[in-house]
Amino acid sequence: MSLIPRPGFTGSPLVRTDMERENQPYFDAAVASLSARLLRLDGLKPVLEPDGSLSWGSLAEADSDTDLALLGLIDGKPRFVALDRVDMRQDQRGGTLQGAMAMTEPGAAATYAAARSLVDWHNRHRFCANCGHMTTVRRSGWARFCLRDEGGCGAEHFPRTDPVVIMLAEHDDKVLVGRNVNMPGKTYSALAGFLEVGESIEDAVARELFEEAGVTVTEVRYLTSQPWPMPSQLMIGCIAKVESEAITLDTNELADAIWVDRDQVRAALAGEPEALFNMRYPMAIAYTLLTAWANGA
Amino acid sequence: MSLIPRPGFTGSPLVRTDMERENQPYFDAAVASLSARLLRLDGLKPVLEPDGSLSWGSLAEADSDTDLALLGLIDGKPRFVALDRVDMRQDQRGGTLQGAMAMTEPGAAATYAAARSLVDWHNRHRFCANCGHMTTVRRSGWARFCLRDEGGCGAEHFPRTDPVVIMLAEHDDKVLVGRNVNMPGKTYSALAGFLEVGESIEDAVARELFEEAGVTVTEVRYLTSQPWPMPSQLMIGCIAKVESEAITLDTNELADAIWVDRDQVRAALAGEPEALFNMRYPMAIAYTLLTAWANGA
Repeated sequence: MSLIPRPGFTGSPLVRTDMERENQPYFDAAVASLSARLLRLDGLKPVLEPDGSLSWGSLAEADSDTDLALLGLIDGKPRFVALDRVDMRQDQRGGTLQGAMAMTEPGAAATYAAARSLVDWHNRHRFCANCGHMTTVRRSGWARFCLRDEGGCGAEHFPRTDPVVIMLAEHDDKVLVGRNVNMPGKTYSALAGFLEVGESIEDAVARELFEEAGVTVTEVRYLTSQPWPMPSQLMIGCIAKVESEAITLDTNELADAIWVDRDQVRAALAGEPEALFNMRYPMAIAYTLLTAWANGA
Repeated sequence: MSLIPRPGFTGSPLVRTDMERENQPYFDAAVASLSARLLRLDGLKPVLEPDGSLSWGSLAEADSDTDLALLGLIDGKPRFVALDRVDMRQDQRGGTLQGAMAMTEPGAAATYAAARSLVDWHNRHRFCANCGHMTTVRRSGWARFCLRDEGGCGAEHFPRTDPVVIMLAEHDDKVLVGRNVNMPGKTYSALAGFLEVGESIEDAVARELFEEAGVTVTEVRYLTSQPWPMPSQLMIGCIAKVESEAITLDTNELADAIWVDRDQVRAALAGEPEALFNMRYPMAIAYTLLTAWANGA
């Protein structure tokens, strides 16, 4: 058995039909199919059936002037999401994690993650970043084109995914967990930060750990990854050996950071009341990393 | 010694000063510093000194109406790049790899990669994707804001990095290399594709290998990564065990794919004339992956 559990927001049964996205007759046939299903969303939040499964309706439920995106196939049935306008001034994070945690089907959160990120991206990218012109949905809902014959510049735009490194510093059989300035009481997690242009994963891990905790990385090992759909990150989970346990906190980011051993991690993962710290979201890859490390990974 | 050589476009001596990017007095002091240096570019192509080092000038060489980006510090000196308008209709890839390969300083290609990706991003993202309004350079050249007091919507935009999975399928001590429909004669490489929203690295590796070669992945192991600055990819290098060697090619992408053993890979890496295939760019992570695998990784 693997030491690394499957991270949250992975394992979707969705078969992406990305090779057919430019194939308009394929899209039209999928729309016309009697088995076509529409993922129900409330804004960006998931809608669940009473049994905790994702709620799917018929395409007739979509507004007739809304573009549809073909997510792919599940059980051979075309699966769509409506690219509705969402009021992004409202908190669209609220309910997302709670909804995802309440899902009972394997991989449902991953299917929802793809849909949520796609709808969010379309909402915040209706105009061409290159020329400012309004863009048009293309490629079965997976791109926006700035069409020349509508007065645009011809640029093509694709959904964005932002890589984030998230890691445990490791020294002498202990790992470093930090409490963000926004986190309540005893809640600690792995340190994390956005990877920048011109960086490798290894570069970004070393930079972030040095900036946030003042530790010098000697070796990075990758463990696993997950998509994080608020709005669209790729979380890249690593463990990094560091030179020493002496830390210098970036107090703008972190209120505290502590070195913890495997027993302390196991107590936190088990939610024991006397644990030194607690974890917030089992769906977050920080939980996966700590579980894997406690397992000996 | 590590089995995995350092990939191209990594190892920059640049110390990113990202924690000071919102600190305008810090930026102003860096601009005013007598040690400030400007990276010379020709469009997006690198300019090299006769000895193969990066060419740095003084800030006086920048147009007075051009925004500057503070890349960070090298040898304690502030390093800038000018966010010049570049004619993106011309081929800005030509000369990039040749220039990078001619660089003689350790990590110079990585420093250049960060600058190139940043200048490219600003060129193609001058307008707000959310509302179409013109945006303004902020955060020491590392962001564009759609300013409300200039009539915009208030959105903030950050440089984009697109994760790409690139991998060798592995079975029975052989790996799969493919020849893209655009590649000349005997040139083969690892298979690759963009990671999509809602996918983990492991999901994307499995999807791409199934789509391009019809092989079913049973296990993914990450090896290493690199930035690829044309324009701004994060290349995530993996080896994936697959169920069998039976392949079904996606002929839109691949002209051919072959299973090769370690001796055949070593001959290709050594550039032997009788090698079964050859590799195009030692700076590409496909070269790193094949070297690592030949080394036993």
